Amino acid sequence: MADLRVAGLHKRRVPGHIAAMYFASDNTGPVHPKILDALTRANEGYAHAYGDDALTAAVTRRVREVFEAPEAQVHLVATGTAANSLLLATHTTPWQTIFCSDIAHIHMDELNAPEFFSGGAKLSLVPSEDGVMPPEALRARIEQEETRDLHGPSRGPVSLTQVTEVGTVYQMPALHDVVGVAKDFGLPVHMDGARFANALVKLGCTPAEMTWKAGVDMVSFGGTKNGLMGVEAAIIFEPSKGREFEYRRKRGAHLFSKHRYLAAQMLAYLEDDLWLQMARAANAACHRLAEGLRAAPGVNLMYRPHANIIFARLPRGTHRRLFEAGAEYHLWDGALDGGPEEEPIAARFVCDWSATDENTDRFLALL
Amino acid sequence: MADLRVAGLHKRRVPGHIAAMYFASDNTGPVHPKILDALTRANEGYAHAYGDDALTAAVTRRVREVFEAPEAQVHLVATGTAANSLLLATHTTPWQTIFCSDIAHIHMDELNAPEFFSGGAKLSLVPSEDGVMPPEALRARIEQEETRDLHGPSRGPVSLTQVTEVGTVYQMPALHDVVGVAKDFGLPVHMDGARFANALVKLGCTPAEMTWKAGVDMVSFGGTKNGLMGVEAAIIFEPSKGREFEYRRKRGAHLFSKHRYLAAQMLAYLEDDLWLQMARAANAACHRLAEGLRAAPGVNLMYRPHANIIFARLPRGTHRRLFEAGAEYHLWDGALDGGPEEEPIAARFVCDWSATDENTDRFLALL
Amino acid sequence: MADLRVAGLHKRRVPGHIAAMYFASDNTGPVHPKILDALTRANEGYAHAYGDDALTAAVTRRVREVFEAPEAQVHLVATGTAANSLLLATHTTPWQTIFCSDIAHIHMDELNAPEFFSGGAKLSLVPSEDGVMPPEALRARIEQEETRDLHGPSRGPVSLTQVTEVGTVYQMPALHDVVGVAKDFGLPVHMDGARFANALVKLGCTPAEMTWKAGVDMVSFGGTKNGLMGVEAAIIFEPSKGREFEYRRKRGAHLFSKHRYLAAQMLAYLEDDLWLQMARAANAACHRLAEGLRAAPGVNLMYRPHANIIFARLPRGTHRRLFEAGAEYHLWDGALDGGPEEEPIAARFVCDWSATDENTDRFLALL
Amino acid sequence: MADLRVAGLHKRRVPGHIAAMYFASDNTGPVHPKILDALTRANEGYAHAYGDDALTAAVTRRVREVFEAPEAQVHLVATGTAANSLLLATHTTPWQTIFCSDIAHIHMDELNAPEFFSGGAKLSLVPSEDGVMPPEALRARIEQEETRDLHGPSRGPVSLTQVTEVGTVYQMPALHDVVGVAKDFGLPVHMDGARFANALVKLGCTPAEMTWKAGVDMVSFGGTKNGLMGVEAAIIFEPSKGREFEYRRKRGAHLFSKHRYLAAQMLAYLEDDLWLQMARAANAACHRLAEGLRAAPGVNLMYRPHANIIFARLPRGTHRRLFEAGAEYHLWDGALDGGPEEEPIAARFVCDWSATDENTDRFLALL
Repeated sequence: MADLRVAGLHKRRVPGHIAAMYFASDNTGPVHPKILDALTRANEGYAHAYGDDALTAAVTRRVREVFEAPEAQVHLVATGTAANSLLLATHTTPWQTIFCSDIAHIHMDELNAPEFFSGGAKLSLVPSEDGVMPPEALRARIEQEETRDLHGPSRGPVSLTQVTEVGTVYQMPALHDVVGVAKDFGLPVHMDGARFANALVKLGCTPAEMTWKAGVDMVSFGGTKNGLMGVEAAIIFEPSKGREFEYRRKRGAHLFSKHRYLAAQMLAYLEDDLWLQMARAANAACHRLAEGLRAAPGVNLMYRPHANIIFARLPRGTHRRLFEAGAEYHLWDGALDGGPEEEPIAARFVCDWSATDENTDRFLALL
Repeated sequence: MADLRVAGLHKRRVPGHIAAMYFASDNTGPVHPKILDALTRANEGYAHAYGDDALTAAVTRRVREVFEAPEAQVHLVATGTAANSLLLATHTTPWQTIFCSDIAHIHMDELNAPEFFSGGAKLSLVPSEDGVMPPEALRARIEQEETRDLHGPSRGPVSLTQVTEVGTVYQMPALHDVVGVAKDFGLPVHMDGARFANALVKLGCTPAEMTWKAGVDMVSFGGTKNGLMGVEAAIIFEPSKGREFEYRRKRGAHLFSKHRYLAAQMLAYLEDDLWLQMARAANAACHRLAEGLRAAPGVNLMYRPHANIIFARLPRGTHRRLFEAGAEYHLWDGALDGGPEEEPIAARFVCDWSATDENTDRFLALL
Repeated sequence: MADLRVAGLHKRRVPGHIAAMYFASDNTGPVHPKILDALTRANEGYAHAYGDDALTAAVTRRVREVFEAPEAQVHLVATGTAANSLLLATHTTPWQTIFCSDIAHIHMDELNAPEFFSGGAKLSLVPSEDGVMPPEALRARIEQEETRDLHGPSRGPVSLTQVTEVGTVYQMPALHDVVGVAKDFGLPVHMDGARFANALVKLGCTPAEMTWKAGVDMVSFGGTKNGLMGVEAAIIFEPSKGREFEYRRKRGAHLFSKHRYLAAQMLAYLEDDLWLQMARAANAACHRLAEGLRAAPGVNLMYRPHANIIFARLPRGTHRRLFEAGAEYHLWDGALDGGPEEEPIAARFVCDWSATDENTDRFLALL
Repeated sequence: MADLRVAGLHKRRVPGHIAAMYFASDNTGPVHPKILDALTRANEGYAHAYGDDALTAAVTRRVREVFEAPEAQVHLVATGTAANSLLLATHTTPWQTIFCSDIAHIHMDELNAPEFFSGGAKLSLVPSEDGVMPPEALRARIEQEETRDLHGPSRGPVSLTQVTEVGTVYQMPALHDVVGVAKDFGLPVHMDGARFANALVKLGCTPAEMTWKAGVDMVSFGGTKNGLMGVEAAIIFEPSKGREFEYRRKRGAHLFSKHRYLAAQMLAYLEDDLWLQMARAANAACHRLAEGLRAAPGVNLMYRPHANIIFARLPRGTHRRLFEAGAEYHLWDGALDGGPEEEPIAARFVCDWSATDENTDRFLALL
């Protein structure tokens, strides 16, 4: 059911020009001006290629500081799928299975990239509740595997998404519980943190607390959805795996020659808490929107909107009025296929760092 | 639940010597003497290697006759997993997903071989009922995929197992229905016929009726579980795919140099209906055993035993008595983990062509 | 021999700060200011993600105009290895072999990425002369393959590099000859155009003449080495292959969500002939440097420096003086391993669009 | 040149019925009657599947005895390509390169299977002399690689073929030298022993001396070309790699369910020195043939025929007479393409265990 809901996200986008009332995604917004400034500053003279430059060295230091992890292996890539796939491949043999939720981005939205980079590993799906994997559901799924000796796949890493794909956040106890299950079986834990900052400011904890202190072994530390052009940091807390990641990144054509331009963005992102400010702005915009949606007649939120994503059901008439007025957001499967007028329509709303109260209020006024 | 039940099949085999009362698997029995005779006859002088010999040519002709398919592409391999994986890979791109039941052998028991041979395709699981995929469940699963454009996998082939992994058989109307769903989406259909003969004699139809006349595009035509040493025919009804299969077979190290010894077995198998006689013997032994189990106090069959496999629940005391007397069969997950005495224990019984009434009756007497 | 010479390029870089006299690579220079301006202009409001934006549509149109190819499939990626590997994989089965020169970047410098993306295809090496594949050497190599039926690899695409890895350029007759050999066997032709612009301005022909009019089927059209941050256009002239490329790009984690920032760079690159101006500047700087090197006592050029790369042999004393003065360039294998003082040392010099006469002249004065 | 010669082996087989004077290959001969007897003996009652049977346990013990290697990991597969590819994959990462001769079977005759099973590793070719890799040529080739840090492939295993593809044998000093080079770089060594027995009886050493005592880490121990139906033992002397091999074998669809029939063959092969007797018979037949060829007017041997393979050049008239009389052997590239009458024609002759003096003498009489 959850599967079905999310399935059509990308398909059902209503075509048209970009609207002022734009809640379609956080990868459609602009880059923060400070990021562009950083690119300009980085654009002086020559710099060694392939990550052997001063800015890249500085990023590594800075990420280690931010995560209180002086030996963490830090590697930049340009897409979230690259970070996820390369991290997972580094921790999976091709005869293993990766455990993730049934709505995980790595399963639903990466066109078999984890399978490709791992050389053909399998994904074992855990039924999600409110976007998160219930610890006992994860445990049950893990127990099913590797009971068939050589016949079925061996147990591989557990991957969880924080913020989840439906906008909820693993609260700290839930995070400890789900990681704890993985640890009971000795499995490495991956966090798909495409919206890492949005979860962090929601929880009010430190990056270390949300990751290695909780038992997470590797993180896709997202920047692209939170104001960068296209930069993610793949972080591995166990130093011995760093070299393999480098081989895999290069072989996957994901090592940039002019690496300084990735580094400059990530450095500026982490400077003066810019990343946290942007995440707070996105979450606040989402909160404002959620309050408005909650108050609107006939509108029901489907999940608790912890961060910058809202799923809601709207009356069809309301939806038509919004779309005609130029609002943009994603619908999902079946939502437009001539369902009965009395059935509400489900939609996803996402706010990015650049969202303005003005836009939100215009939208809410229409409601 | 079904998943859980089958999961432990291989693990929970009770160790020990091979018993007279042996119902553990149909790949543990002997080869039919006529097959050994055929090997001896084939063992004269020189024969061209790699399938370029007279026996291989004869097998191709014979399989085409048996299937009334004069243009079918016929290739021999030595394992069922090779037949399944190579056939599926020939009909799947790495960015597609293969639809199969949640207890499919290709998913549960082939250690990611389909993923390996296809270059990283995904398997999408359809909840099974009595071992078969309900047409509407298959339709719902197919509809979920390829609604996300480039983000999620495209739709690939549908694979069904006949006899199913729990011993049931797709009846002809059910077969037409499930294949019909695949055809509605233009998807190729694969039949994992590791126990093809057992299904055929149950249904009393022709090989053509159970395959291409019903819309099946490719078959793993099993011999190993039905009296051969290790030979399966991979059959593709659409001739244009044959060459790609050959490339994939060779690259997968599955092209035998002394190919005549595979061909000799398959020829003898198809001669004088030996394959059907063996399947009838296995099914009949299974029927006798099932009748006995049904009549035993406290024993319940879990699925309708259409062919040569029975799943049943036994009282724990009964099970202990049987095991102590030397019977062999597979238990499954949790069955031995100190469950409460009053809970029955689940077991799988398989009969092969060599099963004797004497053995069965000894076993039933113990019950 | 050629193999040996290039082998150590990356290893033997002499460490140290970036010097004013910097000739190490064209991927170490800055981005052209107009490119940064274009990024700033593109950074307004929302834009659809994943290439579904107005700038990406404009890039496709513009590349088609530049190449006089109204149906060409144009896809942007961020690295040259991605462009090469994805294009080749789209035109190669895993049981084929790709023909390329023994010093091809795809063979020497991409850490098996073509093998990875193609699913395990092989590369067959053609001995190069002056960096190019002599047509008869290519023909001989092609004739060797696919003579073993299923046993050896089938013939796959031919890949040539223009500008070559040693700085020479296929002149138009040589290009026609080598492509002609591929066409004699019906093989598709790939051009690794990481330095496409540098070759084009050298030859003074049109993009169409250097590609599809000469029989080239697909081009890695480089921007990164010529003033962009990290953008290459993968161009396929035969429209039917475009969709497969898109699947492979997404599955390879090379589809950018904020795609407008790739598009903005490539658009600015092709505007007002900026790309040709930058290439002309790099080639001219190289010409000035080559003239100076030729005139220097004891220095010998190893190849004809047609574009922006020079290979030369220097007396060891000369080399030490240059390095001590802060010049940077690559040496190669054995060059520093305590060879005899009287043996010259081999070095590679590369100029990018930002090279200045002042730097060059300082360097030449030291000579 | 060597490359060219061997290239066409498979293509240029002259079609036709199997002749009495048959020297085409050692995979076209019959299976030794003792092997068939062993299969019959093994065909009693039930045996556990997938290698968990008594015969398989006995084979492991017996191979360990024969190799004086009590901890060796022994796994049976059905094809030489499977043994080679799985052993190499177990010792290679996808970003490495495997070193082998330019005429190695793994390069020339396995349709990219090593690339497939290793996930895309590369093969680096060492120019062969008389079929063997000269130690210094191997050293030079190894030194070329891994000098480019992340850009070029890392160094992987060294694979040598004993008997070589042209019928020569690494003499013990040569074997020590070439393995020594691999060990200088810390690289694992693989022996493709498709004709292991033929080399062993030629050298008169023990299996241990020809393998682990010389530094070889893993062996494809061939049986198929020496009288078995289709069985090879993959032997790994370092015990820790055995489990990974098992995963790879199963995932590659190379784990037989009715494993006892592989085991029975290999056991009988190693009983009473049957394997050595067969190899001696094949080598002796080859020796007789070689003497005859040497003595024939206008015939020249191309390599020293150490084992059971001869390459020779014949006058075209001689060749025609032989073929017309029904002799079968392989020609190679260009040999039949209407070359000038005065040019000799090159051919390969192979003898298997079943070769008879009568056949050889008939053939020689024709000469």
